[in-house]
Amino acid sequence: MTTVAAYAAPAAKAPLERTTIERRDVREHDVLIDIQYAGICHSDIHQAREGWGEAIFPMVPGHEIAGVVTEVGSAVTRFKVGDRVGVGCMVDSCRECESCKAGREQYCERGQVGTYNAVGYDGEVTYGGYSQKIVVDEAFTVRIPDGLSLDVAAPLLCAGITTYSPLKRFGAGPGKKVAVVGLGGLGHMAVKIAHALGAEVTVLSQSLRKKDDGLKLGADHYYATSDPATFTELAGRFDLIVSTVSAPLDFGAYLSLLKADGTLANVGAPEEPISLNLFSLIGGGKNLAGSMIGGIAETQEMLDFCAEHGIGAEIELIEASQINEAYERVLASDVRYRFVIDTATI
Amino acid sequence: MTTVAAYAAPAAKAPLERTTIERRDVREHDVLIDIQYAGICHSDIHQAREGWGEAIFPMVPGHEIAGVVTEVGSAVTRFKVGDRVGVGCMVDSCRECESCKAGREQYCERGQVGTYNAVGYDGEVTYGGYSQKIVVDEAFTVRIPDGLSLDVAAPLLCAGITTYSPLKRFGAGPGKKVAVVGLGGLGHMAVKIAHALGAEVTVLSQSLRKKDDGLKLGADHYYATSDPATFTELAGRFDLIVSTVSAPLDFGAYLSLLKADGTLANVGAPEEPISLNLFSLIGGGKNLAGSMIGGIAETQEMLDFCAEHGIGAEIELIEASQINEAYERVLASDVRYRFVIDTATI
Repeated sequence: MTTVAAYAAPAAKAPLERTTIERRDVREHDVLIDIQYAGICHSDIHQAREGWGEAIFPMVPGHEIAGVVTEVGSAVTRFKVGDRVGVGCMVDSCRECESCKAGREQYCERGQVGTYNAVGYDGEVTYGGYSQKIVVDEAFTVRIPDGLSLDVAAPLLCAGITTYSPLKRFGAGPGKKVAVVGLGGLGHMAVKIAHALGAEVTVLSQSLRKKDDGLKLGADHYYATSDPATFTELAGRFDLIVSTVSAPLDFGAYLSLLKADGTLANVGAPEEPISLNLFSLIGGGKNLAGSMIGGIAETQEMLDFCAEHGIGAEIELIEASQINEAYERVLASDVRYRFVIDTATI
Repeated sequence: MTTVAAYAAPAAKAPLERTTIERRDVREHDVLIDIQYAGICHSDIHQAREGWGEAIFPMVPGHEIAGVVTEVGSAVTRFKVGDRVGVGCMVDSCRECESCKAGREQYCERGQVGTYNAVGYDGEVTYGGYSQKIVVDEAFTVRIPDGLSLDVAAPLLCAGITTYSPLKRFGAGPGKKVAVVGLGGLGHMAVKIAHALGAEVTVLSQSLRKKDDGLKLGADHYYATSDPATFTELAGRFDLIVSTVSAPLDFGAYLSLLKADGTLANVGAPEEPISLNLFSLIGGGKNLAGSMIGGIAETQEMLDFCAEHGIGAEIELIEASQINEAYERVLASDVRYRFVIDTATI
């Protein structure tokens, strides 16, 4: 075991504070990673505050991890000391079920093991990226290509893959019109990636406040959803809408913006059930889809794609001591567009 | 104009009665069809009783039409006198929009023209299949292959294509597990077609009352949804669920029966909005889809497929004088599985 410094929430809703945790010794398939950067995802806050149900404390959040390999287990084949690597939202899965075999480990039938706030198949609680080191099976470690700086790469491990996966699955590309609902941590990645995939990209945001940013990030159009005219003007416009918000949308209204056979993919989701008239799906052969992160091979594909297209997250680098303040700012939507912790400051 | 005998609802909720209607003279792209059989679809009743909103009266329902061509317009190229043909739920569309060009005329952006209870682009009200003759553009006429009897072919024009289209679109075939919710007019076609496509088919019906029928129709398994154990036993089982019912389902429960990346396709739909927790889609990357009939080329493909596999509807042939009684029996789910009117009795 190795003792490492970390930032943890000692209890639900308590501020995060500096502490130490134990990391396991490197097993034969493990890599030891010297974490350099860890992104702050909105779901870190949900979990640290028990917004998604009972959680495990103390909790070290963080599933947008970028760092360097400093030790490898005897059976490791894919990484060596010095490699630049990332870890996302999961650190294990059964590897035997239909989903795992299909490279969709996030939907593992036995249950994937979250990077934090989870219990591994070995019975040990997992602790995330707000720490100096982490030990992870190489099968759940991805390579960060040389062209990508580790700081702007970190958020790709969750925000990047979460948006890349449905964009690819539902055919974003040349000749396709894609709308992104919400321009936050997820939304800004969706815009960059959809643009790089060759789609015509429209941002649907509550107001025009971030319009200049949106256009710079790669959007071709930008509309305010607070303006009812938006829904008239854009009726039947899109092949794909990716909703990144957790506010309760008027789903009928958003579905009406799709072409026939179009898909509204949700990666953010309201906590309360939505009300939906099925005729809004039947009338145009439309789909309402859900999507959760992506598989490991797909995460590697996303990183390679982002490196090739020079895509990183737009970040605000902070010291560990600023985590609690950053949480408040995330809740106030006051970040453009992702906080990343310099873990050297832990 | 030609005067032809028909059965019509003179007003909303009024019993249907014998009357006469005028059919237009054959235009250059038209075929005149001597209707021999017309299926009774549940949507005929919805519309004749104004259950789906304001309707046009007198109304001659019927969009499951099988007959023989008796005259062709000067520019008709695909049909000749004596051909066995069918007409489904639409008789025109704009033919210029993206959906029409993609062979998805049912989602025409300008609006497809319903076979009855609609106003054509020429300003004339359309009248359906409960009549002796109909004049239809050849572009909305399909060929009924020789191997298919006209009486059992008639219901394929709506019930057949409505289930064939989502089964094909969402990949029903060998190695796939498909569930069909409801064993009525649509459901029994879904079972036959999914079985013929090579899928492993499970019927999910409220009770086991029609189990013997379901297995004979091609189902491999049959479960009662009134038994809560069904939802435990079948959790995560299916690649595709086709729901043919308009009862308000517990959608979360049905989505839990899907594998990751699975689709629940609705061809029947409750009139009231449903309540849906989006996490039931996000957790497994699942899709909730709607589907409405199918395009014209796809309808031809379905008829050819059914002929090749010896698939017709299970029908109860009635005389026109029995239409009102048949409506009551449809509402009481007392038909196995489709009433078809012998239009010679009109």
